[in-house]
Amino acid sequence: VNIGVDLLGSDLPPHEFLKEVLGFSRDLPETINLVLFGTPSLFESLHPPRLNVVFHPVEEVITMEDAPLAAIRKKRNSSLCTGIRFLKEGRLQAFVCAGNTGALIACAKIELPSLPPIERPALMTLLPSKESEMAVLDVGANTTNSADHLVQFALMGIAYQRSRGVLLPRVGLLNIGSEAKKGTPELQEAYNKLLLMSESSSSFCFVGNIEGRDAFLGRVDVLVTDGFTGNVFLKTAEGIAALILDELEECSPDAKGILSEIRARLHYAEHPGAILAGVDGIVLKCHGSVSPQSLIRSITTAARLVQHDFLSQIKTELTLLQ
Amino acid sequence: VNIGVDLLGSDLPPHEFLKEVLGFSRDLPETINLVLFGTPSLFESLHPPRLNVVFHPVEEVITMEDAPLAAIRKKRNSSLCTGIRFLKEGRLQAFVCAGNTGALIACAKIELPSLPPIERPALMTLLPSKESEMAVLDVGANTTNSADHLVQFALMGIAYQRSRGVLLPRVGLLNIGSEAKKGTPELQEAYNKLLLMSESSSSFCFVGNIEGRDAFLGRVDVLVTDGFTGNVFLKTAEGIAALILDELEECSPDAKGILSEIRARLHYAEHPGAILAGVDGIVLKCHGSVSPQSLIRSITTAARLVQHDFLSQIKTELTLLQ
Repeated sequence: VNIGVDLLGSDLPPHEFLKEVLGFSRDLPETINLVLFGTPSLFESLHPPRLNVVFHPVEEVITMEDAPLAAIRKKRNSSLCTGIRFLKEGRLQAFVCAGNTGALIACAKIELPSLPPIERPALMTLLPSKESEMAVLDVGANTTNSADHLVQFALMGIAYQRSRGVLLPRVGLLNIGSEAKKGTPELQEAYNKLLLMSESSSSFCFVGNIEGRDAFLGRVDVLVTDGFTGNVFLKTAEGIAALILDELEECSPDAKGILSEIRARLHYAEHPGAILAGVDGIVLKCHGSVSPQSLIRSITTAARLVQHDFLSQIKTELTLLQ
Repeated sequence: VNIGVDLLGSDLPPHEFLKEVLGFSRDLPETINLVLFGTPSLFESLHPPRLNVVFHPVEEVITMEDAPLAAIRKKRNSSLCTGIRFLKEGRLQAFVCAGNTGALIACAKIELPSLPPIERPALMTLLPSKESEMAVLDVGANTTNSADHLVQFALMGIAYQRSRGVLLPRVGLLNIGSEAKKGTPELQEAYNKLLLMSESSSSFCFVGNIEGRDAFLGRVDVLVTDGFTGNVFLKTAEGIAALILDELEECSPDAKGILSEIRARLHYAEHPGAILAGVDGIVLKCHGSVSPQSLIRSITTAARLVQHDFLSQIKTELTLLQ
C-alpha cells in the first residue's frame, strides 16, 4: 500500500512536518509505504530512514493564497497535483494533504472519475456524539448546494456508515428547526426527497431535520448539510470545545487528568482529516493549521481505509442505493 | 417599568413557568411591574402575590405548530399579539416571550415601527468568548439575507456594543475562511461594503471574515451572519458545550465543583433571550425549550435594558453611524 503525503502548502513548516512523519514512520507496518512530497531543499542531505519511506521532490508549491483553478492549471508539477495524478495512475492508493482545499478539490474533480450517481464531491468528517460517531457532510467542498446534491451527500454518508458496520444509518438534515417546512427551499426539497426514498429503502432511516443543538445527542449517523453551513458547524464545534477546555484548565489546574481524558475522547473534533467523498480515489484533507499529531492520524486513517477496501465498499453501497 | 411576560406557547408547561415567575417576583425591586399573560384557567383561584404583579388573562394561544402569518392574523387576542400591542401602546416597556419565533417576529414587524435605516429586524444574542462577550446577529429572524441586510445587522451590533460601553467595536463576518473572496456572493459584497464604511468611520473597526473556530477567541465584539447560519452557529455551540460538560461529569463525578463554575461562566450559552433588534420596542425572545431560570434571566435583562434606556441609545448610535 502506497500512501502519499503532501508536506507542502499547509500552515505547518514543512521541515517540522517531515520530522514528525519520519519519527512516525518507524512504527509503520512493513506493508505500508509512505511517499513524501516536498521541495528538493527539504530533502537535501537527508536519506529516507527506511525502505518503506520514499522522498519525491517537486519543484512547485500551491499556497493557501493561490486561486484554486489557476493554481492547478499553472502548477501541474506541484506536490498537490502530483499526488492526485499518482493516485489516478495507481502509483498511490491514498493521498493526504493539508494544503489549499479549493485546489485539492478542483484537481481531484478534474483528474479522478466520479462515483455515480454523485455529481459533486463533498468533504465528509466523523464527529463524536453521545455513544456514537456521526458522518457530517459537506463540511466545505461547496459553497451552495441544490436539493439533489444534498440527497447525494446523504447517499455517500449512508454508504460510508454502512461500510463501517452501521447497517441502518439514521440520516438527518442540519436545519434550524425540526418541521418539514423549515430552512431554505433546497433543504425543504431535500427533506421531501429523502422522506420518499427512505419509505422504499431498507438501507437507511430518515429522521428528518436536526438542529445544531441536537446533533450531538447521538440521534443521527449521517448529518447532511451544504458546504457553507457544514463548515461553520464543524469550526464552531471546534471553537467552543477549545474555549471550554481552556477555561477548565485555567479554573482548575488540578483537573489536567480529567481534561486529557476528555480531549482524547473528543479528539475527533480535531478530526483526522476529512474524506473527499464522491471521487474514485482515497483523498484525505486536513486543516491547513493542522497539528503534526492529527496529520499522523490522517495517515493512519488513510491506511485503514485502503486496507478495508473502502472504495469498493462505497461503490457497492452506492449501487445498492440507486 | 412594566415588563410583559408571555407564559404561553413555549415548550414549558405554563403553570411551571408561572410558579417560577411568582417565586422570582418576590425579589423584584418595587420599580418593576410584571404583567403576566396566560389563559384564564392558569390564573384560576390564584391571586397576584404582590402589587407589582398583574395577571392578564387571554383567550387565545399561538402554538409552535402554527404558521406565523396566519396565526397573528387569526389570533389577534393571543398572549403573543396582546403583548406586542401593549408594547406599541406604551402599556409595556418590554416584552419577554418564549413562543413561536416566526409569529413573534412577524407581529413585531407589523405592529412596531422599524429603526431607520434597518429594513429587517434580527435576533441578536450575546455569547461568551475569551475575555469578552460578542453580540451575534442574526441568530434566526431571517432565513436568507442580502448584503445590505448584513451591513444593517453590523450597524445594530455596533450600536448595541457601543451602548454597552465598547467604544470601538470590532466587527467580523462569520465565514468559511478569512480571505475577502470567501463565501457566498452576499458575504463578499457585505465584506466590501463594511470595509469601505470602516475606513471613514471612527465608531467601529472591521476585522474581516471570522471562522467559527476563531469566533470564540475574543477577536470580535460583533459577529455578523445571516439568520440561517447564525442559528446553526448558536445551536451548535450549545450542543457541543452540553456534550463536553456531560462527558466531564460522567468521567469524573468529583469534578462537580469545577463544572458548576464553568457552567456559570458559560451561562450565556443558554443566553438570556435574544434581543429582537431593529424594531422600536424591547422584545426578548427565549428558546421554546427554555429553562425557567433562563426565562428569569431574560426578565432581568429586559429590566436592565429599559432602565439603561437601551432604545434611545440604539437610535442615537444608528443616527451617528449613517
